[in-house]
Amino acid sequence: MDLKKYIVDVKDFPKKGVTFKDITPLLNDASAFKHAIDEMAKLILKNDIDVIVAPEARGFIFAAPIAYATKKRLVLIRKPGKLPRATVKTDYSLEYGSGELQIHLDDLKPNDKVAIVDDVLATGGTTQGIINLIENQKAIVKEIVFLADLKFLHENDLFKNYNLSSLLEY
Amino acid sequence: MDLKKYIVDVKDFPKKGVTFKDITPLLNDASAFKHAIDEMAKLILKNDIDVIVAPEARGFIFAAPIAYATKKRLVLIRKPGKLPRATVKTDYSLEYGSGELQIHLDDLKPNDKVAIVDDVLATGGTTQGIINLIENQKAIVKEIVFLADLKFLHENDLFKNYNLSSLLEY
Repeated sequence: MDLKKYIVDVKDFPKKGVTFKDITPLLNDASAFKHAIDEMAKLILKNDIDVIVAPEARGFIFAAPIAYATKKRLVLIRKPGKLPRATVKTDYSLEYGSGELQIHLDDLKPNDKVAIVDDVLATGGTTQGIINLIENQKAIVKEIVFLADLKFLHENDLFKNYNLSSLLEY
Repeated sequence: MDLKKYIVDVKDFPKKGVTFKDITPLLNDASAFKHAIDEMAKLILKNDIDVIVAPEARGFIFAAPIAYATKKRLVLIRKPGKLPRATVKTDYSLEYGSGELQIHLDDLKPNDKVAIVDDVLATGGTTQGIINLIENQKAIVKEIVFLADLKFLHENDLFKNYNLSSLLEY
């Protein structure tokens, strides 16, 4: 199944000069979405994993079904003010801006084997922030899995010390 | 399985006087999360449904696995500035604030049979906004399914013209 035909380029979003990969047509096709989740779950299961870590908000769309399908724990990483209990935070940089990410202080345990799941790898700023949060909790990043890797936006050796994979490359 | 033991009251969040139902412990238990999704999927399948509609952001966590498990289309409702293509919008009111929701103009088709899936029903303001967006697109709200219904926050006859169900009541 050619999943790329369900991902649409939207020019000048969210700001002029940026071309956004719109994944909503993939979600809106039940077969394409199921295929994407099943294939991403296979990438996760190449390793022994305890927890799927899901960054807000589009990460939830892929991480939650993968956690369900693989019967793994699901831990959220969110923007400030969203997680209700005690949190730790990290700053991160984006293709178009910067921000702060938080994780609950007690959601990961030391030595938890973690897979990070997100929709699109762009410059890697968000992913680096997520790695920082996980490793600060003494958990272990075993897999980083994306639906799509926008390789033209980052160096080839980005995250070279980690197992990084994606279903699609651009 | 008693799912209520995986939902924690957090007092004075997001502001003083509000007690927040924190669902993250449920996500962080693989069996509890799988059970919740499977039971919510059964509620969806009581009716003939084409599309699961998912409101940002916690709605994604339940709607996406249910769309995967039931092999239905998944359509997102998001806050302003998040959906990249042409949108329609609605205003809504919340237990603690107000806001604007958007849906892509072409994600729902006329007569699509829709199930709205979200985590928690509080005052119903968000859900009313979502219903408005769906019905403005000439699609049909066949089911509204929540993980938890905070019945103490709304009248008993809220959404009485719709099929509303939840796994848990408070």
